[in-house]
Amino acid sequence: MNDPRARKVSQAALMSTADETEASFYEAMQTGDLERMMSVWSDDEEIACVHPGGPRVIGTVAVRAAFEAVFVNGPVHVQVHHVRRLETAVCAIHHVTEKVQAMTDQGLQTAYVIATNVFMRTALGWRMVAHHASAGLPQDLPDITEPPSTLH
Amino acid sequence: MNDPRARKVSQAALMSTADETEASFYEAMQTGDLERMMSVWSDDEEIACVHPGGPRVIGTVAVRAAFEAVFVNGPVHVQVHHVRRLETAVCAIHHVTEKVQAMTDQGLQTAYVIATNVFMRTALGWRMVAHHASAGLPQDLPDITEPPSTLH
Repeated sequence: MNDPRARKVSQAALMSTADETEASFYEAMQTGDLERMMSVWSDDEEIACVHPGGPRVIGTVAVRAAFEAVFVNGPVHVQVHHVRRLETAVCAIHHVTEKVQAMTDQGLQTAYVIATNVFMRTALGWRMVAHHASAGLPQDLPDITEPPSTLH
Repeated sequence: MNDPRARKVSQAALMSTADETEASFYEAMQTGDLERMMSVWSDDEEIACVHPGGPRVIGTVAVRAAFEAVFVNGPVHVQVHHVRRLETAVCAIHHVTEKVQAMTDQGLQTAYVIATNVFMRTALGWRMVAHHASAGLPQDLPDITEPPSTLH
């Protein structure tokens, strides 16, 4: 299993569902593993990534560079809650909340990030095509699933 | 054409592509037309909407209430630039920049919002299933499509 080709096949086999691909995405974040991160993404030139508060990053070359810049600071301490899924046979849209923690001069800081992850089924399995994360909030905002005026 | 049924059929006919559905979405914003807005969305209970800086809103009932709350202040002065599209036969992911203007006590304020719109092809045509808009920025951030260290 030290053959890098074997590792690549093994990782591809793990991405037979959008959930598995998403798990690989966050494991790559948690370990700061750039190669694994890029194996998660489709090789489509229109893949897009928006990090919290940042610009839109388009295409495999720029997305790789953006994650490389993130991982310069080491792994990202992120825990993810799967909130909602809308899935078809070929496309999956996942809405998650990311709890991100970082040590700063002010001590351990925690932010909650609302993210939308989109996956498509390709010949190589499910691959990420979009990751859009909003700027972090200090609290975990509950989802709104009912209008505030509804009487029960 | 004053028959409301005729109008509904006419609008549905206009949503035969994801681009047409997206155009209807922004026209509904620009006119503050709640019924038109909701005609754009899929009736799937997992539709999701994130307004800039806001929580995640899930499902048709809550999404309607969220737009109703937005339109209380009248139409939204939004101009949209289509930036990128990733499309298949049944699913389309559009990345746009919204230029939003509002009159405030400090005069006319402009914000630039990065948004991801996801559409799916349904029996009734293309419908929106997700709208995720990041908090507005005072400048129009250019997309990053090349790593900053690339030498040409």
